[in-house]
Amino acid sequence: MATKNKNLHTVKTQGTYYDIVKKNISKIVIDYQRSEPGKKLFMMGWGNTSQPLSPAITHALVNASKRLGDVETYTSYEDIRGNVQLREKICEEYYSKKIEVSFDPSEVFVNDGAQSILTNILELFEPNNTVALPNPYYPSFYEGVILSGRSSFLELPCLEENHFIPEPPQTKVDLIYLCSPNNPTGAVFNRKQLQAFVNYARYHGSILIFDAVYNYFIRTPDVPMSIYEIEGARECAIEVCSFSKFASFTGLRVGWSIVPDTLLSNDSEYGELKNMWNIRNSIKFWGASNLAQQAAMAILTEQGQKECKGIVDYYMGNACLLKQSMKNFGFCCFGGTENPYLWVKAPNGENSWQFFHRLLTETGIVGIPGILFGSNGDGFIRLSTLGRREEIEEAAKNLEKFHV
Amino acid sequence: MATKNKNLHTVKTQGTYYDIVKKNISKIVIDYQRSEPGKKLFMMGWGNTSQPLSPAITHALVNASKRLGDVETYTSYEDIRGNVQLREKICEEYYSKKIEVSFDPSEVFVNDGAQSILTNILELFEPNNTVALPNPYYPSFYEGVILSGRSSFLELPCLEENHFIPEPPQTKVDLIYLCSPNNPTGAVFNRKQLQAFVNYARYHGSILIFDAVYNYFIRTPDVPMSIYEIEGARECAIEVCSFSKFASFTGLRVGWSIVPDTLLSNDSEYGELKNMWNIRNSIKFWGASNLAQQAAMAILTEQGQKECKGIVDYYMGNACLLKQSMKNFGFCCFGGTENPYLWVKAPNGENSWQFFHRLLTETGIVGIPGILFGSNGDGFIRLSTLGRREEIEEAAKNLEKFHV
Repeated sequence: MATKNKNLHTVKTQGTYYDIVKKNISKIVIDYQRSEPGKKLFMMGWGNTSQPLSPAITHALVNASKRLGDVETYTSYEDIRGNVQLREKICEEYYSKKIEVSFDPSEVFVNDGAQSILTNILELFEPNNTVALPNPYYPSFYEGVILSGRSSFLELPCLEENHFIPEPPQTKVDLIYLCSPNNPTGAVFNRKQLQAFVNYARYHGSILIFDAVYNYFIRTPDVPMSIYEIEGARECAIEVCSFSKFASFTGLRVGWSIVPDTLLSNDSEYGELKNMWNIRNSIKFWGASNLAQQAAMAILTEQGQKECKGIVDYYMGNACLLKQSMKNFGFCCFGGTENPYLWVKAPNGENSWQFFHRLLTETGIVGIPGILFGSNGDGFIRLSTLGRREEIEEAAKNLEKFHV
Repeated sequence: MATKNKNLHTVKTQGTYYDIVKKNISKIVIDYQRSEPGKKLFMMGWGNTSQPLSPAITHALVNASKRLGDVETYTSYEDIRGNVQLREKICEEYYSKKIEVSFDPSEVFVNDGAQSILTNILELFEPNNTVALPNPYYPSFYEGVILSGRSSFLELPCLEENHFIPEPPQTKVDLIYLCSPNNPTGAVFNRKQLQAFVNYARYHGSILIFDAVYNYFIRTPDVPMSIYEIEGARECAIEVCSFSKFASFTGLRVGWSIVPDTLLSNDSEYGELKNMWNIRNSIKFWGASNLAQQAAMAILTEQGQKECKGIVDYYMGNACLLKQSMKNFGFCCFGGTENPYLWVKAPNGENSWQFFHRLLTETGIVGIPGILFGSNGDGFIRLSTLGRREEIEEAAKNLEKFHV
C-alpha cells in the first residue's frame, strides 16, 4: 500500500507559506479588486525583484547561449558541484577579496538557489537531531524542519525587546538556523553576537546553518557579511548565499553553499559533511543550469560587481524612501537599512491580519502578514521594497490615507 | 550531537555511480594515458551530448536573455510548478499531439531534470513502502532507493533470456520503477508488456514510476512513447521526461513529471499525490531556471521539433554505425535502435571490468562496465553514441584491433 509521507501530509494540512501567499492572499486581493475595481494596488508582498539583469550579465548570457549553439563551443553536463571556474571565482573574488577568508573550490557547492539548499541540507542529519529556529523565521526553515521528520524544534525569540537578535540556546541543540541580515526583521548580528553562537556551537559540537542571502545589502560598517569572519566558524558553520536578490537572479536559480573541510561536529571526521553533501547532490540533484552559472560568473567580475551595486542601491533607495515616509506618517518600522524589506509594527495592538486588511483597504498596499513568519511575527507586516521606484513612491504617498 | 544521515553514509561507503565514473574510471584512464601517451582514446562512457543546441533554441535563448536585461520585459520568479505556458505546451504539443492523451497543466511539473525527479519523488512515500527495480537499473534509481531509507528492494531481472524485459512481480510491491527505452540495455516495452504492469499496479494499488527520457529515440512502430498510451495508466503511473538527450539539454537542466489527478493508490484520494508533490517542490525546490524553460518552449514548436529530430537522427546514425561495426567484428550487441547506447556482451565469459580493461587497452574505447548498473549488468559494457560522428567512425574502425 503506497502510504503517503506523513511529514509531508503534516505540512500540507497546515498549508505552506507558498500556498498561503499564492492562494489565500491572492484570493483576498482579487476579491478586493472586484469590490473596488478602480483602486490601485501596490504588490509589496512576495520578494519579486523588478530590476533587469545588468548589462554585463545580459551580455554574458547572450554569449553563453550562442556558445551552446555552436558545435565547437558546446558543453554538456557541468560538474555537479558547480562549474569549476565559478567555484574558483567564488573563492577568489568573493571570499578572498570581500570576506578575506580562503576556501578551496571543493568546499563550494553551486546549487539552484538558497531555498533548495536551506531545506535539503537537513538530509545530511538524522531526524532525531534537534533544531533551533529564530522566531520569526523564513518560512522554508520551518517547513523544511517539519518535512525532515522533526515534529518540534527549539524557538529562539526575536522580539522588539532584544532588537530581533536571539541569544544562543540555554540547552544543547544540534543544528541552529541563523539569518543575517534577517528576513523578515532586517536585524543584523554584530561580531560579538555571532561569536556567541560560534562559541556555543564549538562547545556543543553543533552545526550553524547561516543564511547570508541578503549580505550585499549591508550598509553599516563592521557588520559581518559572512559567518566566516568569526573566529572558529569554519569548524561549525555551513553558509548559504544566493545571487537572487542583489543581482535580480530570482528566476535564473543559482546560489551556493560552503561546507568547509574543517567542519567538525561531535561525531564526524573532518570533511565528512562536505563529502556527504556532495554525494547527496550527485544523487538527488544534478547541477545548476549552465547558463545561470555563466551569468553568475559575470557578476563576479569588476564590472559585474559595479553594476550589481547599482541594483542594490536602487532597492535600498526604495527602502529608504518608504521607511522615511512610514515614519513621517507615524508608523513604527524596522529593517530596510540592511535588507530590502520593511518590518512594520501594527498600530493600536492590531494583529497581523487586521493590519494587512486595513493597509490593503485604506492604502492599496499588499504586504505579508508577519504571523506567516512565526508566532513572534504577529502584530507585524513585511513589505518588500524590491519593486519599481515609481510604485514605491506612489505607495509612500498613499500612506497618508491610513489611520494610524 | 549532529549525527550524520545513516542512509547517506551507506551510499557513501558503497561509492556512488557518479563517484565511480568520475574518480575510479577517470583514474584508470589517466593512468593508462600516462603509460601510453601517444594512444588515442574514445570517451564513450558518460552520456554527454555532443551536438549543439539547435538554431531555433539558441535564438530563443538569446532573445530570452535580452528580455531579462530589459526593465520592460524582465521577469522574476517563475511558478514553482513551471512556467504556465510551458506546461500548457507540454499538454498540447506533446501529450495531445504526440501521445493523444490529454492532461491539465496542473498535472505537469517542470523540474530541473529527470535525475532529480526520479530520486526526489520517493519523498512522497513512507520508507516502509516496498520498491521494485529492474536489474540492470539506472544507478540513480538504486541510490535514491537506499538514500530514502530502504535497505532492500525487489529486483526484476532483465536478462538476455527475457530480452531484458521484466515480468511484473509475483508478490505485492508498492512502487515499481520502469524505464523504456531502457538505459542501459536499450530494450523497449511493447503495449502488452506495459499493460501487464499497469494491470498489476491497479490490482495492488501500486504506483509505477515510468522513466521515458529516451522516448524520442524510438524508431520501431507501435512502441509506446508514454505509459499513458496504456489503458488504466492514469490511475497508477507517474511519468518522468527530460529534454536532456534529444535536444542536447544536458547542461541546461529541465525535465518534467506528470502526476495525474486520477492517480489512485490504495489509501490516497484522487489528486493527493499531485498535491503532495507540489508541496514538496514548493519547500525543497523553487522552480527550474527561467531561461532553460524558455528554451524548452522553443523545442515544442514545429521548427524546434524538426530541428531536434535532426539531433536524434545524428545520434542514432552514430548508434547504427557503431552497432554494425561491432557486429561485423563478432561482438554480440544490444540496444542502439531505440536509445543512444549500445549494450555490448563481453566475449568469452569475461566480466564487465575485464572487458572494460581489454576494450580500453586494445582499442582505446572507454565504456561503462555493466556491473555498475547492477548485478545483471555484469558481463556487459555500455557505450554511449552521443559523441561526434568522426569519433564514432574512428572508434568503429579501431574495433578490428580487439581480439574477440
